[in-house]
Amino acid sequence: MEPAMTLANGRPYLAIPGPSVTPDRVLAAMHRAAPNIYAGALPDMVETIWPDLRRLAGSSGHVGIWIANGHGAWEAANSNLFSRGDRALVLATGQFGHGWHASAIAQGIRAELLDFGRNSPADPDRLESALRADSDHSIKAVLVTHVDTATSVKNDIPALRRAIDAAGHPALLAVDCIASMGCDEMRMDDWGVDLIVGASQKGLMVPPGLGLVWASDRAVERCREADLRTPYWNWTTRFDATEFWQLWHGTAPTHHLFGLRESLNMIFDEGVEAVWARHAGLARAVWAAFDAWGQGNPQIALNVADPAARGHSVTAARVGPAPSATRLRSWLEAKAGVTLGIGLGMQTAEDPGADGSLRVAHMGHVNAHMTLGALAAMQAGMVALGIPHGPGALDAAARAVAEAAGA
Amino acid sequence: MEPAMTLANGRPYLAIPGPSVTPDRVLAAMHRAAPNIYAGALPDMVETIWPDLRRLAGSSGHVGIWIANGHGAWEAANSNLFSRGDRALVLATGQFGHGWHASAIAQGIRAELLDFGRNSPADPDRLESALRADSDHSIKAVLVTHVDTATSVKNDIPALRRAIDAAGHPALLAVDCIASMGCDEMRMDDWGVDLIVGASQKGLMVPPGLGLVWASDRAVERCREADLRTPYWNWTTRFDATEFWQLWHGTAPTHHLFGLRESLNMIFDEGVEAVWARHAGLARAVWAAFDAWGQGNPQIALNVADPAARGHSVTAARVGPAPSATRLRSWLEAKAGVTLGIGLGMQTAEDPGADGSLRVAHMGHVNAHMTLGALAAMQAGMVALGIPHGPGALDAAARAVAEAAGA
Amino acid sequence: MEPAMTLANGRPYLAIPGPSVTPDRVLAAMHRAAPNIYAGALPDMVETIWPDLRRLAGSSGHVGIWIANGHGAWEAANSNLFSRGDRALVLATGQFGHGWHASAIAQGIRAELLDFGRNSPADPDRLESALRADSDHSIKAVLVTHVDTATSVKNDIPALRRAIDAAGHPALLAVDCIASMGCDEMRMDDWGVDLIVGASQKGLMVPPGLGLVWASDRAVERCREADLRTPYWNWTTRFDATEFWQLWHGTAPTHHLFGLRESLNMIFDEGVEAVWARHAGLARAVWAAFDAWGQGNPQIALNVADPAARGHSVTAARVGPAPSATRLRSWLEAKAGVTLGIGLGMQTAEDPGADGSLRVAHMGHVNAHMTLGALAAMQAGMVALGIPHGPGALDAAARAVAEAAGA
Amino acid sequence: MEPAMTLANGRPYLAIPGPSVTPDRVLAAMHRAAPNIYAGALPDMVETIWPDLRRLAGSSGHVGIWIANGHGAWEAANSNLFSRGDRALVLATGQFGHGWHASAIAQGIRAELLDFGRNSPADPDRLESALRADSDHSIKAVLVTHVDTATSVKNDIPALRRAIDAAGHPALLAVDCIASMGCDEMRMDDWGVDLIVGASQKGLMVPPGLGLVWASDRAVERCREADLRTPYWNWTTRFDATEFWQLWHGTAPTHHLFGLRESLNMIFDEGVEAVWARHAGLARAVWAAFDAWGQGNPQIALNVADPAARGHSVTAARVGPAPSATRLRSWLEAKAGVTLGIGLGMQTAEDPGADGSLRVAHMGHVNAHMTLGALAAMQAGMVALGIPHGPGALDAAARAVAEAAGA
Repeated sequence: MEPAMTLANGRPYLAIPGPSVTPDRVLAAMHRAAPNIYAGALPDMVETIWPDLRRLAGSSGHVGIWIANGHGAWEAANSNLFSRGDRALVLATGQFGHGWHASAIAQGIRAELLDFGRNSPADPDRLESALRADSDHSIKAVLVTHVDTATSVKNDIPALRRAIDAAGHPALLAVDCIASMGCDEMRMDDWGVDLIVGASQKGLMVPPGLGLVWASDRAVERCREADLRTPYWNWTTRFDATEFWQLWHGTAPTHHLFGLRESLNMIFDEGVEAVWARHAGLARAVWAAFDAWGQGNPQIALNVADPAARGHSVTAARVGPAPSATRLRSWLEAKAGVTLGIGLGMQTAEDPGADGSLRVAHMGHVNAHMTLGALAAMQAGMVALGIPHGPGALDAAARAVAEAAGA
Repeated sequence: MEPAMTLANGRPYLAIPGPSVTPDRVLAAMHRAAPNIYAGALPDMVETIWPDLRRLAGSSGHVGIWIANGHGAWEAANSNLFSRGDRALVLATGQFGHGWHASAIAQGIRAELLDFGRNSPADPDRLESALRADSDHSIKAVLVTHVDTATSVKNDIPALRRAIDAAGHPALLAVDCIASMGCDEMRMDDWGVDLIVGASQKGLMVPPGLGLVWASDRAVERCREADLRTPYWNWTTRFDATEFWQLWHGTAPTHHLFGLRESLNMIFDEGVEAVWARHAGLARAVWAAFDAWGQGNPQIALNVADPAARGHSVTAARVGPAPSATRLRSWLEAKAGVTLGIGLGMQTAEDPGADGSLRVAHMGHVNAHMTLGALAAMQAGMVALGIPHGPGALDAAARAVAEAAGA
Repeated sequence: MEPAMTLANGRPYLAIPGPSVTPDRVLAAMHRAAPNIYAGALPDMVETIWPDLRRLAGSSGHVGIWIANGHGAWEAANSNLFSRGDRALVLATGQFGHGWHASAIAQGIRAELLDFGRNSPADPDRLESALRADSDHSIKAVLVTHVDTATSVKNDIPALRRAIDAAGHPALLAVDCIASMGCDEMRMDDWGVDLIVGASQKGLMVPPGLGLVWASDRAVERCREADLRTPYWNWTTRFDATEFWQLWHGTAPTHHLFGLRESLNMIFDEGVEAVWARHAGLARAVWAAFDAWGQGNPQIALNVADPAARGHSVTAARVGPAPSATRLRSWLEAKAGVTLGIGLGMQTAEDPGADGSLRVAHMGHVNAHMTLGALAAMQAGMVALGIPHGPGALDAAARAVAEAAGA
Repeated sequence: MEPAMTLANGRPYLAIPGPSVTPDRVLAAMHRAAPNIYAGALPDMVETIWPDLRRLAGSSGHVGIWIANGHGAWEAANSNLFSRGDRALVLATGQFGHGWHASAIAQGIRAELLDFGRNSPADPDRLESALRADSDHSIKAVLVTHVDTATSVKNDIPALRRAIDAAGHPALLAVDCIASMGCDEMRMDDWGVDLIVGASQKGLMVPPGLGLVWASDRAVERCREADLRTPYWNWTTRFDATEFWQLWHGTAPTHHLFGLRESLNMIFDEGVEAVWARHAGLARAVWAAFDAWGQGNPQIALNVADPAARGHSVTAARVGPAPSATRLRSWLEAKAGVTLGIGLGMQTAEDPGADGSLRVAHMGHVNAHMTLGALAAMQAGMVALGIPHGPGALDAAARAVAEAAGA
């Protein structure tokens, strides 16, 4: 008789929605001797990063990098947008929308929340109404996540911009693209976005440690007097830096920058639109599997009903009843080498631990093999654990990949 | 409309039968400054390798490491076993059996070939007959592959040993375990094996560059006068080394040795029997998929009909008609990030390029995610390319994993 | 005739005062797959970091890690210490003292500056007088660098604490140890230090990206109401974190944390006091060389006359007349593989570009070979460039190492 | 009082004559996923290696790479040059000359030894006489080390070729350049060399594991019938390979090949003649130091009196009386982070352990900082241990570097 066996050997696959899988090329680029920070290879290389970051976001404006995580990037954005007591309107479609709101409140901004729940995108009509009601235009900016990492809801940014314009309101539009940059289509200029918040560890495929802010000329102009600025967050000295150290307000994040350079090489080698298409194709494979597993089995369901409102980098889903999702995640980690994301902010009265929820990430350095393997391993776990599931999920996922990839 | 898309991004998966996937831990262990080769960390560490290599093979005898590949290890084995003109009997079940035979011939050994084709294991009865016919016991050794990397045929080593014994013949039993060591069960002492040839780049998960030879006391004793020895291949100076440099007849393969130490750590952390069981379980998943694809579709078929005669580290199969296999391999590399092995030695009159054959490796650093992902990607490719295939393969593979892994 | 030759090949040696040489062990620890940030190896490992960071600083209090550089750590310190309009007293002995002062001012703190020039430590008597003059005890904290990276002046922290106590003043004592932590002796509790600011890229031998703050119980208690806090800088949620993400206010700096764990391993493997002694011995070798070069040649001189007031991690010096220092630095980089630090904040009327000043770092991962090699290469450069220098410098430096190391 | 201190921290410097310091670029190139060995990046890249290897040696002929160390490369050379019983003439100027001779003898070659001791190069006149005495031209080849790693004696290869020609003898000239390739000038075609043996771990800066053989057309032509060939060593199948695997007679040394590619990039980025000049300049710095240490102190002396007969990659020297050299080496490793080479083959009646001899390597990835640092650390050790030494060594070494590098 064979011994008790685990299958959690071989190369593990981390499919949580950030940090994403760090490519070997990025890790190799970061494995280097400390560089001089006054002259030479580092400053020369950094010059090449800015145009590529702009190109990635579809921006002709400004961009800066903070040594920080995504929460730090929120704070950078808030500090530069607002003065103490300024008004903001936050559209929440998941935990991270709520998080940005809380962050703004804690910084002394009068941030109002429009909550759209956990399953649907922000409604442009409600936004338009809210702005119309602000007849003295005291709301300085609208804050919204592009894709909320917790719910995987994707907001329709062009529609939200149209709503602002329809209301004849001058509010700036600030978008958290932490979970979508380098995954879902983003055209900052074309879509009338004034500010984007990003971070290194998702679609940008670099370890956590860099927060990014893109800003339109309009945002820079309109926020010259913002008084929440502190020396570290202040974008003025960074956007207008004349010395290398000012770009980082101190010592540069040397190794992360080399990693970022390499990840941008990878993205532009592939082509930004090809990167978006890859994420779209893989997302459809994941959705197809969940749709099949959920056939005749309502305990398994995607979190967002409308495909157009689903992010392409992460998929939140229910695998119930609790604690089925948690059991499945544990099995996958122990037996198959796959780590899925927990259900974040998905607590309900019946499931206070969110143990009937999980998230499958498909962001950044991900391909058909990785995603199909995760789905197949999930099904193996459902079989092993006796979790009921509809048939044909893996065939459907393979078909979705075939359709996306072509012959 | 979305742009033309490839899915060959993300982390590529190399599923050829050697070199296998190098674990991050092994690569990290090899990424180090050059060490002193006279004293210190390197010689101290090497002392710990020998008992672990013996334990891995189930050997109480001798073991040496040559800076060489598997062909070099054959030559090391041949040089130490034979004198010019000695007789050998080689049992071939694929291209590598033929290769060892050719190697022996070229070294001046009178090596006779028993060919068992490409789909079946060596027949112990034929071996016994051949040895009985050698009434003056002039055959010094029987040479056989454990698992032939080309055909994935696994030979029944204990049965072959019993055949030798049944014939009352003193021939040594020499086994090529290059494709099986660290994957398929091997119990050198218990099974009466006298010599094993191995290499670093398959189940041992280290880049190519090390050839290994294990030898029983009996083999060492019986071969003291072998005159094919040259200084480099001579095992005597290595097995009896009193100075560190003699272990390698010159400079040590410093970085590979640190890699090997780490791979042995990984193997023994998991447990040798658990490693074997993992390979068995993953092999069954692969077989289940092929069986389903081949249902009602004889163009897809495993190369070896009898599961007991299939190696657990690699699966050779037909995906016909030619050039279906080649087209599928190309699609997988370009669209899904998976590289499969070519059909090696599988040429036929109808398929002179072996373009209807391929091999899926599942050796070394491999888990359910990797193997299931490869199978699912293969099916996506069959769909995309219109290669007919039976239904249910991925469900069957997932089920096989579930059975192997348990709840 | 031989071709024109450069010698800037081989392994370059970066001897700037931060980032310091990253040890291979640290780079290797950072070269790893992205980890799960909810459970497993990362959170388990992080638990072990806190006691080691406390031990390193001689602290029984609190410590937190921010994803930030040293300037960010200043801002973390300021934000938690002060409310808008609070008073602070900053003792400056170089550019970084001035920098901390400017940072505090920009955050809305009424920070007063006591400037001690660029060549001498802060005078405890002046501090005592200043505090006595603050009869209503409105100065909340005294801020001072331990070693100023620009001037290499080291302040006598115990003496400054005694001055505060002698004045009967309740001011907290906050010390910037960015350039000294892990290099010069620091005993936070014993010396009555209330807050320490640190960063990863000098004595801690980790790439830039982590800012650290240690705080005494007294500091935490006295600053509960500080209203400059923002969510990112707020130490309360970090010191009292109940969830892993709260330690970093968002995503953890995964790879830097593994690097820091390894650097702490290296420091405690060697022993903190041995680490300090190594830095002291190497500093004396550097000083001995400069003293010899400057014999009869006043153009070469250490920046700080009193050895007790010199930091052990970096040495600022004059190599005049300008632009001798700059020419020497260029020669060293191009011909000998050594990069020295520029003179920072050393501009004078006669030398507006500080081209007669430079800095030699000897911080963190540094040994006799590296430091003596830098000095010998400097002398080679002086010879090649015709920069006058006194004799016997290398003999003196070798002797200093011999004395420090013993037989 | 300071604690007992070692200085063996910081980045260690391995100054043994092989393996040499592996450049970060080479290690990074080797830190990669296992590649496909049938098509793609690996075979494409390998095509570029051959012309660069030829260019490095000044050869228009053939070159092959064996997975082997230097001893294996000897065996490759011998196997292809000779038939059993052929005659060879070996000129020995140190342990490795004797080693090649012993290797040839053990392979069945009638190799005669001309021994030139341990301090002097081979005398062309003796070679000419020996060949004149071979009136029937039965000596097939003359074997000689370019630089003997043990003694650091460099032979005058053009002069030896002229001696062969002067004798009117058709013998091939085979040169062991293991310790000199990529360090000392070599012009294979111009100098009339027929065969060169090399290895990866010295001037080529790649970890041990590759043996190289360059062969002239004449050598290939004259050795077609050599019967010592075995499949592994046979150069015919390698030089005439039509399939990728034949280049290595089996699986390719994947990771070493990527490392070699990078080291060749480094060499040609610098320029081969600049590389030679760098080695020459550093060698002179080492010699200058030893000359000064030995002034009035005959216990310290270079092994080779004539500078023209010293290799540029390694310097053998006496630091007596025994065990001074061994004590110094131990001190350097424990206190200064420098590992020197042992005296190899330097045993005498008075010094049976060769503890009065050592070797300083300056080969491959080495620069002024590294070499001067090693010399300065050596002097620190002599001071600490009370080993008498003449004055001014470090000044002289710095001066030598200044002269080599210029302003």
